[in-house]
Amino acid sequence: MAVQDGLKAHTKYLWFETNQRREYIRITDEVQQFCDESGLKDGFILVSAMHITAGIYVNDWENGLIKDIDNWVERLAPEDPSYHHHNTGEDNGDAHLKRILINHQVTIPVTKGKLDLGPWEQIFYAEFDGQRRKRVILKALGI
Amino acid sequence: MAVQDGLKAHTKYLWFETNQRREYIRITDEVQQFCDESGLKDGFILVSAMHITAGIYVNDWENGLIKDIDNWVERLAPEDPSYHHHNTGEDNGDAHLKRILINHQVTIPVTKGKLDLGPWEQIFYAEFDGQRRKRVILKALGI
Amino acid sequence: MAVQDGLKAHTKYLWFETNQRREYIRITDEVQQFCDESGLKDGFILVSAMHITAGIYVNDWENGLIKDIDNWVERLAPEDPSYHHHNTGEDNGDAHLKRILINHQVTIPVTKGKLDLGPWEQIFYAEFDGQRRKRVILKALGI
Repeated sequence: MAVQDGLKAHTKYLWFETNQRREYIRITDEVQQFCDESGLKDGFILVSAMHITAGIYVNDWENGLIKDIDNWVERLAPEDPSYHHHNTGEDNGDAHLKRILINHQVTIPVTKGKLDLGPWEQIFYAEFDGQRRKRVILKALGI
Repeated sequence: MAVQDGLKAHTKYLWFETNQRREYIRITDEVQQFCDESGLKDGFILVSAMHITAGIYVNDWENGLIKDIDNWVERLAPEDPSYHHHNTGEDNGDAHLKRILINHQVTIPVTKGKLDLGPWEQIFYAEFDGQRRKRVILKALGI
Repeated sequence: MAVQDGLKAHTKYLWFETNQRREYIRITDEVQQFCDESGLKDGFILVSAMHITAGIYVNDWENGLIKDIDNWVERLAPEDPSYHHHNTGEDNGDAHLKRILINHQVTIPVTKGKLDLGPWEQIFYAEFDGQRRKRVILKALGI
């Protein structure tokens, strides 16, 4: 942690290795725990997926909706053998597009030491090409 | 407002209650007013929708384009009775997906006390399941 | 550059004028150079397209994938003479929607003076209505 004249900057990395190719994992508690560890009282926490076939989003913690989200990203950015990217030997062109669709990062406001989320807002890690180790950066900046 | 050694952190909540299910409301002036109130000269203002069926975007203030955006989000994330989420009794599965498509937050740069936006950039609140009270957080961080 | 009690805020503008209507330009090196110029050691760099028909994204530096991304944005937000926005005399309704789809900004974490990106993460400027001068803001905030 870097502290200078009251300003705090704190960094942590979370690792994920999913069982499925596509999975949606709630990480709100891990981000609040990081907030507690950092001592941040007021500022921002950036949550950003460091692998380019995964994303981060904030939405409802409801299993039906998670299925709807999964169906929706597959409809708009489907698995397809014909992606140009597959000429490199990769098979995950769809996962790169799904990351763009979902977005790969969020900035969480922190007020009085707590994640300042709406009543139904939950933070999710979205894996689109899993079954291997991947990283998410958490960075806190503020007072 | 928290001030520590020159660093400012300031927070405000805007409330919205739209007449229509879907509406797009320009909030650039409200965000600039918040910037003035906070005294922020250089830094970031996060603008983030706290309800999971609403979003924030930055684009043109032109009524034809707003209609195009509305048609487009409905085409890519349509109203549909068959969403799994509706098994909970909700009817707004499309609105959750539209929020993901539009994105739910933006970070506005502030330079010399002004929102540092391009000549045509305007900040919009996008409501996808309105007719009830909803909240947006504004948080300023910087000097 | 504004410096107050150790906190740094630094701003720079990049200009682009593409040869094609749609182009995808890697800007990771320009953002790292800005990071070096700013002296930022720990914090955030916001990279945000100031024109409303351009975007910023972070993904793979691989030409096949860039073609896939271009095909994908055209499939989901196609060129089409019938956009309402075209009643103003404009012909770029698709470009406004493509900016929303790709997103117009990213926040890059900086740790120990370096962009804290994953091994394959590269920052791209996405032009959807080019052949004229356009601007991107870079703003660093932190220690």
